[in-house]
Amino acid sequence: MSNTSEFVLPRGFRFGAARAGLKKSGRADFALIVADAPASAAAVFTANRVSAAPLIVDKEHLRASGGKVRVAAINAGNANCAAGQAGLDAARATCAAAAQLFGCRPVEVFPSSTGIIGVPLPAEKLIAALPGLAADLGADCGHFQQAAQAILTTDTVEKTAFARLEGAGSDGQPREIRIAAFAKGAGMIFPQLVPHATMLVYILTDAAIEPAALDGYLQRAVEVSFNRISVDGDTSTNDTVLLMASGASGAAVGADDVAFAAALTQVATSLARQIVADGEGVTHVVELHVEGAATEADALKVAKAIAHSPLVKTAWAGGDPNWGRLMAAIGYSGAEIDPERIDIRFGELAICRDGGRAPQYDEAAAHAYLAQPEFSITIQLNHGTGSCVFWTTDLTHEYVSINADYST
Amino acid sequence: MSNTSEFVLPRGFRFGAARAGLKKSGRADFALIVADAPASAAAVFTANRVSAAPLIVDKEHLRASGGKVRVAAINAGNANCAAGQAGLDAARATCAAAAQLFGCRPVEVFPSSTGIIGVPLPAEKLIAALPGLAADLGADCGHFQQAAQAILTTDTVEKTAFARLEGAGSDGQPREIRIAAFAKGAGMIFPQLVPHATMLVYILTDAAIEPAALDGYLQRAVEVSFNRISVDGDTSTNDTVLLMASGASGAAVGADDVAFAAALTQVATSLARQIVADGEGVTHVVELHVEGAATEADALKVAKAIAHSPLVKTAWAGGDPNWGRLMAAIGYSGAEIDPERIDIRFGELAICRDGGRAPQYDEAAAHAYLAQPEFSITIQLNHGTGSCVFWTTDLTHEYVSINADYST
Repeated sequence: MSNTSEFVLPRGFRFGAARAGLKKSGRADFALIVADAPASAAAVFTANRVSAAPLIVDKEHLRASGGKVRVAAINAGNANCAAGQAGLDAARATCAAAAQLFGCRPVEVFPSSTGIIGVPLPAEKLIAALPGLAADLGADCGHFQQAAQAILTTDTVEKTAFARLEGAGSDGQPREIRIAAFAKGAGMIFPQLVPHATMLVYILTDAAIEPAALDGYLQRAVEVSFNRISVDGDTSTNDTVLLMASGASGAAVGADDVAFAAALTQVATSLARQIVADGEGVTHVVELHVEGAATEADALKVAKAIAHSPLVKTAWAGGDPNWGRLMAAIGYSGAEIDPERIDIRFGELAICRDGGRAPQYDEAAAHAYLAQPEFSITIQLNHGTGSCVFWTTDLTHEYVSINADYST
Repeated sequence: MSNTSEFVLPRGFRFGAARAGLKKSGRADFALIVADAPASAAAVFTANRVSAAPLIVDKEHLRASGGKVRVAAINAGNANCAAGQAGLDAARATCAAAAQLFGCRPVEVFPSSTGIIGVPLPAEKLIAALPGLAADLGADCGHFQQAAQAILTTDTVEKTAFARLEGAGSDGQPREIRIAAFAKGAGMIFPQLVPHATMLVYILTDAAIEPAALDGYLQRAVEVSFNRISVDGDTSTNDTVLLMASGASGAAVGADDVAFAAALTQVATSLARQIVADGEGVTHVVELHVEGAATEADALKVAKAIAHSPLVKTAWAGGDPNWGRLMAAIGYSGAEIDPERIDIRFGELAICRDGGRAPQYDEAAAHAYLAQPEFSITIQLNHGTGSCVFWTTDLTHEYVSINADYST
């Protein structure tokens, strides 16, 4: 497997973006991914019980098509959520128009939406934009990047990731398999995807993979990437990760290909970290290592309690080495712990030892360490063998500003 | 039962406060409540598994004394938490010194601490302040208020509540029973008290009540008051509610006195609301009514998810009627819901009906309603008969400022 930032796109896909008039800014807000032929597809969606209309339609479509997607139609500026029957009608009308335009079945269209909740989606704007979009699709990097930009909301940069690995064709000869992906994040980011944002992620590969095997790869990759990040602890109604395999590389991948799984996980983890780094108002990205928990589930409880504590997150915003707030969050996490055995390190700096201030504790050094834009914190519970890595952020004035003035 | 804001203190108690030198501001930071004789006592403490040293000592003392407290010794400026054996030693040394001074057993002393976590408590400063404090105790309103002020940290006002009711003496003649209480709150406020801040609450009465009965009254009152508030969702390591009964009114109260329970609940609820209103950086106090839940536990899940959502809380800071964020929080709360049956009202304004925007929705009116410093939101799930009332706050720039610059 070779990892490269080189812009190599999987074969079998074209991309496009347009201004449909949903974003107040007037920027591009509607993107298409169009497979040359129906592609194998697997998707995971938010665990939120309030689920946006496109997610309901997506699940129906994947079931009816047997895991095939020809067109992914993604709008920003409106989440099409909490809009009742009108929301479902809007999603289905968009699918019908796209199906007609591209000569596929409506169930092979995969709609996605992100933006404000509770405002009816004007499907007519999307439908009106479709013909122009279809006429300007391309398989090149420029078109890929336009699509990656169009789906953004409060994101400040587009988020993309790429990987290449070697597969084999039916003739036994080596074939290059490519993976490319783009995503949006920024706020309402605590994806809990269940076979589990408004995180939207589209991962494309030109490997030939059956939908069931694709689903297995996706679930394993999501569990250690998108399900291990949080900006604000708010699990969205619209979170979606779609993985499409065109087969256009000529290389088939079975259900247990270690190299493909590793490449996919690397792409997913890269996007997950990019989403955290571009979270709303974020000035510090924190990599949490929880070790020595009774179970992995307990390690995750500790990581999530820390990642969701306003007191911990605001302390990080100020570079404040107030590790007592970490102790409090560990204590209420629900994990089995022995407070007297907890060690805490900031990077390599000993902060807490056996539940109390470490003898070597140096407040000035700790403050300087936390002043960095990215840092790591290790919580050693000394209680068992469960562990996890989790990525999160600080909570800043800018986050408050962005979210205290969203729809007004 | 008569409710009054008149300053009538229960008989049998004296109060005092001093500057022990723990607060950087130099303000009073050490308070005493001294009962004339050992009083019946009941207490509830944080559910946080990381528990401050004074709480460990308090539990030992209440057990050893059979539910009797002569002296409550409360310091602000240092939480005496995550300080290992040194923390326990500091708490016990303070108790020993107070016991000697007041001629009681050390187990009849109830220590409390609030402030920064992880910094050893300088017990010698408290012990040095004790003689001066003891020489200046008083049973009057001025001394009570000094004690209520000394325990504050980032609070901006002292929090007190009072009630009076009629009881009967052993001669059958009417006797007035008085209840007075003071509390601190401000940050790290999501008390989960288990038979459950750094919330500290001291409730005093001159009724004669056995410790076991007192415990029952306290648990019932706490469940619908302090366990129904949240400022930031951070459950403290130090939360404590102490209820002391001196018996000095001459009126005995049994285990099932409806009037006493009502008066106590009223005092507890008043303090709980005062704590929310004076939460760190708070500009809006929100009373949540969750109705029609499958169970009361589900109603509480919905209330807590809303109360802890950074996106909901920042929207409130801006008076932003973004009810979609409420829908998202309801959806990830874990409660059983049917999204299509959810109604939301802001005060009397219809906002969401059957899971979608209400036909009468008026954004300008909704915004104006939320611009008020106190407002109520009703979530009607139309799913069952479970309900709850919960008090919470917005999340503001000022909260971030206070907590990004605490110990530095």
